[in-house]
Amino acid sequence: MRNTLIHNAVLVNPSLPPEVTRKGWLLMEGGRIHSCGEGEPPPEVRARAEVGIDAEDGILLPGLVNAHTHAAMALFRGLADDLPLKTWLEEIIFPVEARTVSEEFVYWGTLLACWEMIRTGTTTFGNGYFFEHRALDAVKEAGMRAVLAAGVVDFPTPSCRDPSLNVEHAIAFVNQARDEEPVRPGIFCHAPYTCGPETLVKSKEACRAHGVRFFIHCAETRWEVEEIRSRYGTTPVRHLDRLGLLDSDTVLVHGVWVDEEEIRIVAQRECSVVVCTESNMKLASGAPPIVSYLREGVPLGLGTDGPASNNDLDLFGEMDQTAKLQKLREGDPTVVGAAQVLHMASVGGARVLGFHDMGLLEPGYHADLILVRTDRPHMRPLYNPVSQLVYSARGSDVEHVWIGGRHVLQQGRITTLDPEAIQKKTALLQVQVKSHIPER
Amino acid sequence: MRNTLIHNAVLVNPSLPPEVTRKGWLLMEGGRIHSCGEGEPPPEVRARAEVGIDAEDGILLPGLVNAHTHAAMALFRGLADDLPLKTWLEEIIFPVEARTVSEEFVYWGTLLACWEMIRTGTTTFGNGYFFEHRALDAVKEAGMRAVLAAGVVDFPTPSCRDPSLNVEHAIAFVNQARDEEPVRPGIFCHAPYTCGPETLVKSKEACRAHGVRFFIHCAETRWEVEEIRSRYGTTPVRHLDRLGLLDSDTVLVHGVWVDEEEIRIVAQRECSVVVCTESNMKLASGAPPIVSYLREGVPLGLGTDGPASNNDLDLFGEMDQTAKLQKLREGDPTVVGAAQVLHMASVGGARVLGFHDMGLLEPGYHADLILVRTDRPHMRPLYNPVSQLVYSARGSDVEHVWIGGRHVLQQGRITTLDPEAIQKKTALLQVQVKSHIPER
Repeated sequence: MRNTLIHNAVLVNPSLPPEVTRKGWLLMEGGRIHSCGEGEPPPEVRARAEVGIDAEDGILLPGLVNAHTHAAMALFRGLADDLPLKTWLEEIIFPVEARTVSEEFVYWGTLLACWEMIRTGTTTFGNGYFFEHRALDAVKEAGMRAVLAAGVVDFPTPSCRDPSLNVEHAIAFVNQARDEEPVRPGIFCHAPYTCGPETLVKSKEACRAHGVRFFIHCAETRWEVEEIRSRYGTTPVRHLDRLGLLDSDTVLVHGVWVDEEEIRIVAQRECSVVVCTESNMKLASGAPPIVSYLREGVPLGLGTDGPASNNDLDLFGEMDQTAKLQKLREGDPTVVGAAQVLHMASVGGARVLGFHDMGLLEPGYHADLILVRTDRPHMRPLYNPVSQLVYSARGSDVEHVWIGGRHVLQQGRITTLDPEAIQKKTALLQVQVKSHIPER
Repeated sequence: MRNTLIHNAVLVNPSLPPEVTRKGWLLMEGGRIHSCGEGEPPPEVRARAEVGIDAEDGILLPGLVNAHTHAAMALFRGLADDLPLKTWLEEIIFPVEARTVSEEFVYWGTLLACWEMIRTGTTTFGNGYFFEHRALDAVKEAGMRAVLAAGVVDFPTPSCRDPSLNVEHAIAFVNQARDEEPVRPGIFCHAPYTCGPETLVKSKEACRAHGVRFFIHCAETRWEVEEIRSRYGTTPVRHLDRLGLLDSDTVLVHGVWVDEEEIRIVAQRECSVVVCTESNMKLASGAPPIVSYLREGVPLGLGTDGPASNNDLDLFGEMDQTAKLQKLREGDPTVVGAAQVLHMASVGGARVLGFHDMGLLEPGYHADLILVRTDRPHMRPLYNPVSQLVYSARGSDVEHVWIGGRHVLQQGRITTLDPEAIQKKTALLQVQVKSHIPER
């Protein structure tokens, strides 16, 4: 890994407010950001550089962080659209998963997802699925940063046929993956309606014991709120709070159907929330109350959710739709502006996942960086780079990606994976999946 | 223009329901679709072809139709975001337009927009702006199909300093552009709150006299409804209906704040409606009642609105967000599916603009076609091509575009325009615009 100097770049540091340098440079050294500045790089900086890249007025910013997805489900992309969440989940996804998801499926599905994420400027992601040890192999090959959380539900899964062993099974993965930096393990309990109190408590205790993140889908749909109320006489957030699951290492995914008091509980417990706008829209789940979360100071990340319910892993589209939906929700076009969603999709998501030296253009931070082209028609003129990134740019505008200083995307070509092999295997797995779609 | 044969393509004909041919071919002859079919092209078809293109399993479909935009406003892209519509319009856009919009501005701004539209798979658009004769020059150079409607408002504009002459000014353009097929003229009255009854009636009468389309922003915001109610004691649609403006050659843009009776009025008068989802979200205007319009049989098109309020001209993103927002609006993920929005963005929009032999893969229809790559990670696997086009594809996946059989985009490169010259001029105009942004 060589010291790389990027010059002639528009630097966008996604702090709040963001810092924009119209013409700047950045030096990577030892996988970290060594220094950056305005204008031309000084001689002593040039002297340290082993590689120089002219950004040609492209925008250089931290790699984006997809704080919640189910990467291997890339192989289910477009399998079943325009359906209700419960039908989609219980009549299609769960049965097809039961019949097709294998170690091989997770390995190749995660490779496909990593290829797409790197190609579209995502350098770190939070994942929850089965056979996470195979996802780990894929992520290491791709050279990405990730928190891989072992999926837990109270029914038989492809990776754990005996539900009574589901938590032990997850703990085994946490032990296996504890020393795999920059990949970290975690536990992902699917939801309060698919995991009983005992499973939830055992899982969270294990997370505390191992010092890893606990993830759970929570308050995603109105149906879930009614279901939890009928089972436990309370709402999802209160249910998890009573079980003692809420703390600063717990990440609630979705958090759409919460009342103001629940938002304050989440804030008091220092939980994080990951918003998945496109998935919530496509499944008609609802629009999360981002403005209230921000007012209470809840740390927020942005997630695409699984590619089967989105149907892509492009965080640029997710930023755009999140900002727009919030304006519509609040009836106020000034809320959740471009700077806010860019923060959520970078340093915000990094902190939600527990990475505290990532997501900003700061010396000493990980050199996870992306260079976005600005010489395309939809990127011109360029009055406001932050606005352009959120409302005009697409993942396909990302031309270069570095993760820990390693050049993983060069002029749009991925250097760590073999796209042809992934496409061949994907075609074979597609045939296998199609043969298992239940008659409806 | 040579007879072109495309083979090894996934053919998607956006009828309702759509027709999908997994492996097919299509022959263009004399600017029209000569024939298309499944499997390998028969010998007699091969014999007629002068050029052969292997689609390599790409998706071939009709070019998309952007039924409403203000193309030259591409030069205002990102100029002022996260602001309320009235502030955005009255404190930024109108003043800056008054100071910067010129014949040259419209010519170059429209060139920039045409470059972006062709690059992202749009072959026809409906436009409303000033100096439309210069937009006409740009569209002819780009080789696109369009309805160019001369903008009319009751205050001085860059192209018509004396409002008492605004309609005459528009009529002059209609006369000038009447014989410019495939470009057609029209008149665009900005809105019921910027055009008085006399102006509206005169404009519509002129449209009837010349047999051209009449466009108007209508029922876009709650504010507009209240404003029209206070001025005329009724709602926008009823106001236009009382003035006798509604017929099958009238196109209402936005149509967000309408009641059920107004929707029936629109249907009875056989008016069309153009939905601009992203603009309505970004400006917090609202979510149009597409399900009700469809139930009443109102012809619908899809528009990006101007690039200053979107901030792009990519109809793929517009389709995605329209389908998703409607699911959320209705609380039902089964409404306004992929097939429905694809229909709106192609043949639906074509008919709204008055083109009746365009937007379908039918022999005799205009050979306005786009080829979408499917060998990218976000396009794999490919279970459902229609779903993939709407929920996964982006404008950047469009690799080839033909308009009237002419090859205007080849492997992502535009053949009719000079991108470098457009970028140079855009940079100069950006400086000019910035110097005129009012202090706020």
